[in-house]
Amino acid sequence: MKQIAFALLVGGSVLAPMTGWADDSAAIAERNAAFEAAFNAKDAAGVAALYTEDAVLLPPDMAMVNGRDGAEALWAGFIEAGAGDLDLTSVALEVAGDLANEIGTFSLTVPDDSGGTHAVNGKYVVVWKRDDAGVWSLHWDIWNGDPSE
Amino acid sequence: MKQIAFALLVGGSVLAPMTGWADDSAAIAERNAAFEAAFNAKDAAGVAALYTEDAVLLPPDMAMVNGRDGAEALWAGFIEAGAGDLDLTSVALEVAGDLANEIGTFSLTVPDDSGGTHAVNGKYVVVWKRDDAGVWSLHWDIWNGDPSE
Repeated sequence: MKQIAFALLVGGSVLAPMTGWADDSAAIAERNAAFEAAFNAKDAAGVAALYTEDAVLLPPDMAMVNGRDGAEALWAGFIEAGAGDLDLTSVALEVAGDLANEIGTFSLTVPDDSGGTHAVNGKYVVVWKRDDAGVWSLHWDIWNGDPSE
Repeated sequence: MKQIAFALLVGGSVLAPMTGWADDSAAIAERNAAFEAAFNAKDAAGVAALYTEDAVLLPPDMAMVNGRDGAEALWAGFIEAGAGDLDLTSVALEVAGDLANEIGTFSLTVPDDSGGTHAVNGKYVVVWKRDDAGVWSLHWDIWNGDPSE
């Protein structure tokens, strides 16, 4: 019995995630906060740095976008178009080893025709990936809009 | 040394996935084929049966939809509106234990104003979940459209 307990312990230490769910959840929350901060500072490169090198972004009504360079160009386009005040709200998170899947909602503002702004609301799924150093990055990122009001 | 090998074996047999990547990939491809077949047979209940009981669907320009009943109502609405000829193409699949993340593209036809049909193309991310019996089901499902032509 002692041998089996030892066996599970050794197996677990090799195969189990290096951190617990609460740590992963907190780390991903920090990355989302960094995403908001970079976006709202109009720092597209800072947003892109939060993605994996081989990230895939799937924006609505646009073609898929690949990699950090693609991500930077995409977010720069939105930022240059005047989008701002991004707010991300995590709704669900499921961690499986070095991958974590998140459902969230977002809101941001975009310029309207009369010189003001109007709010855009939507929802997303992000597949996060943890690298060997333990850093979580957006790996796949897809979103779409809420019903129009 | 022998004891450590034994330990890893025991730990591995407890914690590792029950099947290999190729098996998982084939199983998920079968489920996608079943999704297409049910949708194209106008069988919304058959489509919904491919989802987990606590599935979350994130359709574009609509609110989130929860559970199999929600999935059935959603797909019944699309089917009753005349959507058909659904074709799913898997682009990427990453399996992590009992979860698997898939990127894919889709096409379907919807009625146009002149009594014919026109094609709608888009892309999706599905988070698949494997149950204790080894059956993969759609757990989270989000999609959006390609650029309009």
